[in-house]
Amino acid sequence: MDLHITQDEFVRAMASVQGVVERRSTHQVLSNALLTAAAGELQVMATDSELTLVSRHVAQVSREGMASIHAAHLFQVARNLPTGPVHLVLENQHLVVDAPPAHYRILGLPPEDYPAFPAIEAVSKLEVGSEGLKRLVDETVFAIPLDDQRYGLNGGHLESVESPDGESRVRLVTTDGSRLCYSETPYSGTFGMGRHMLLPRKALVELRKMLDRPEEKVEIAFGERAATFTMGTAILHTRLVDGEFPAYRSVLPKTHLRRLEVDRIALLEAFRRVSLEAVDQSNTVRIQVQPEQLLISARSVDHGEANHPVPITLEGEPILMGFNVRFFLDVVSCMTDEALVAELGEALSPCVVRPRDRDDALFIVMPIRLE
Amino acid sequence: MDLHITQDEFVRAMASVQGVVERRSTHQVLSNALLTAAAGELQVMATDSELTLVSRHVAQVSREGMASIHAAHLFQVARNLPTGPVHLVLENQHLVVDAPPAHYRILGLPPEDYPAFPAIEAVSKLEVGSEGLKRLVDETVFAIPLDDQRYGLNGGHLESVESPDGESRVRLVTTDGSRLCYSETPYSGTFGMGRHMLLPRKALVELRKMLDRPEEKVEIAFGERAATFTMGTAILHTRLVDGEFPAYRSVLPKTHLRRLEVDRIALLEAFRRVSLEAVDQSNTVRIQVQPEQLLISARSVDHGEANHPVPITLEGEPILMGFNVRFFLDVVSCMTDEALVAELGEALSPCVVRPRDRDDALFIVMPIRLE
Repeated sequence: MDLHITQDEFVRAMASVQGVVERRSTHQVLSNALLTAAAGELQVMATDSELTLVSRHVAQVSREGMASIHAAHLFQVARNLPTGPVHLVLENQHLVVDAPPAHYRILGLPPEDYPAFPAIEAVSKLEVGSEGLKRLVDETVFAIPLDDQRYGLNGGHLESVESPDGESRVRLVTTDGSRLCYSETPYSGTFGMGRHMLLPRKALVELRKMLDRPEEKVEIAFGERAATFTMGTAILHTRLVDGEFPAYRSVLPKTHLRRLEVDRIALLEAFRRVSLEAVDQSNTVRIQVQPEQLLISARSVDHGEANHPVPITLEGEPILMGFNVRFFLDVVSCMTDEALVAELGEALSPCVVRPRDRDDALFIVMPIRLE
Repeated sequence: MDLHITQDEFVRAMASVQGVVERRSTHQVLSNALLTAAAGELQVMATDSELTLVSRHVAQVSREGMASIHAAHLFQVARNLPTGPVHLVLENQHLVVDAPPAHYRILGLPPEDYPAFPAIEAVSKLEVGSEGLKRLVDETVFAIPLDDQRYGLNGGHLESVESPDGESRVRLVTTDGSRLCYSETPYSGTFGMGRHMLLPRKALVELRKMLDRPEEKVEIAFGERAATFTMGTAILHTRLVDGEFPAYRSVLPKTHLRRLEVDRIALLEAFRRVSLEAVDQSNTVRIQVQPEQLLISARSVDHGEANHPVPITLEGEPILMGFNVRFFLDVVSCMTDEALVAELGEALSPCVVRPRDRDDALFIVMPIRLE
């Protein structure tokens, strides 16, 4: 292995796998990245044995080859190098990093011991736009419980749906029991295999980082147990979560008694400000839905109280509802829309929030009982 | 109490005391700040009973008065308010914060229970430039041990010295046993009381923050047990540390065998890069002092090794020395000078580092034994 790469491209290469490698693995090889010098590029691969990422970067390769090097350490080295060309050479299982005046000789593991990129028997293959996929993740991933082993809840459920005007879309659905979120984007291709799969949270987080690359299309392939996301310069492979996502459609309210329109930024600021006093165990805010405004308030035993009006237009009768403000904050801040619509029933019925001007995202927040 | 203040000034006022207040105090009043509305200004005071800070901010006051409010909470509230004017009114021991559409009512404690600003019987009063004082702290504070109760070491020692050309200067000296640093700046006024005092680390840290204000002069007053630092818009009062700083002058080398000049940034970058492999308990780097370069290197059992040359001009014989790179990094990064001078003796003699072009700072770093 012998190649030249620019320092900033080397930093990007090593940065791309930092979220995948295990920092404190008992299995030493899982702390490493596999560097492969191939025709005109440096490929960096990392795996935690569930999730595998390969990232491709332009390089001048004069001898092909592979090296297995501690990923976090090599990232630190790369970041601190002088700008300009970096020369990487493998010598007796040591990676020599030469970027004068800096010079490193870093011990690796045998590259042949590195896990192979897992094979996948794809029964479905589809293509989506990367901007749409980015939004899909942003609008749902926060509602996947962090440490929840409840069967079927610990992942994002991807399925195929048909939009009202007949467009084929992938829909990603997540829930933590108090919220349910979905977001959709059009796809082309075939969605087989019972038409759904459950994606681990970590895979969605790494997919989201990958989508910051300036590329237009992502190919999604999946089989019974695994899926891959492929872009021009990166490929992510993930095992699917075992389990069946709950039959969430029964939770979606069919009707509503009240409907209101609100400016998203005004609502977000009000929630942020009032949340400073919503410090009880449920982070309780009271929302008085009035004909021309929401009056959002909270009261804490220690400090005091906050009140904040937000202008709205309302169809239906006024009502008083209670919410966990943190749940609402996530929902309101994940979108980029100007105007939101909320559909309400009775005080303890699920509250539906969605962007006013598009039909491809929907959020349900459960109210809490006020004392 | 009734006043108007701009939101950004209110944020600055509350920000200024966050480092002083105790976040988890059993004594509730020490988590609070005392707000005083006086002629044309809002004064914010905080204390941890050792250290007291008063910060003054322009406000339109229509009724004078005082309020004792949880400092961290009020800072959070201030930061999240809309930009524009903020109206603060005291109503029945509640501070009403009105910045439409945001409205808070925050419970306070009786302001008369707040500790009074401590009196000081000053025997010395002097005046220094704020830029010089800033440098004084930056070039020394890092060497005060964080959790060291060794008698006399747990503070910065301020004393009066005379420069080679007869200028009166304050000198701040710190040491942690492995390093000794001092920095000087001219003063006017009288330095009485045996000509020294020992300042707590936290006082120096808060003083440094205070010096970011655009002011020119600082008055330092001190007596047997306390000192104050006064600027136009802030005053800091601190108890002095009991104890006697070590007789550090005996440590200062009188002669040297080797003298070298080096570019500070080049040295800093070399240390940063090599430090990534200096991960043993002593963070050991080897420095080979050669006629035209330092060759800095480190080797770690797990990862590998780093080598980094730095051009120098040397008077004296080549030598090999070992250092804890972290100790050296602090010293080299605290200065802003272009060129440094190092004066060396034998391999285990103290190493003196100082700026080439000024005589008002000096750093001693102890070498370590190489295996």
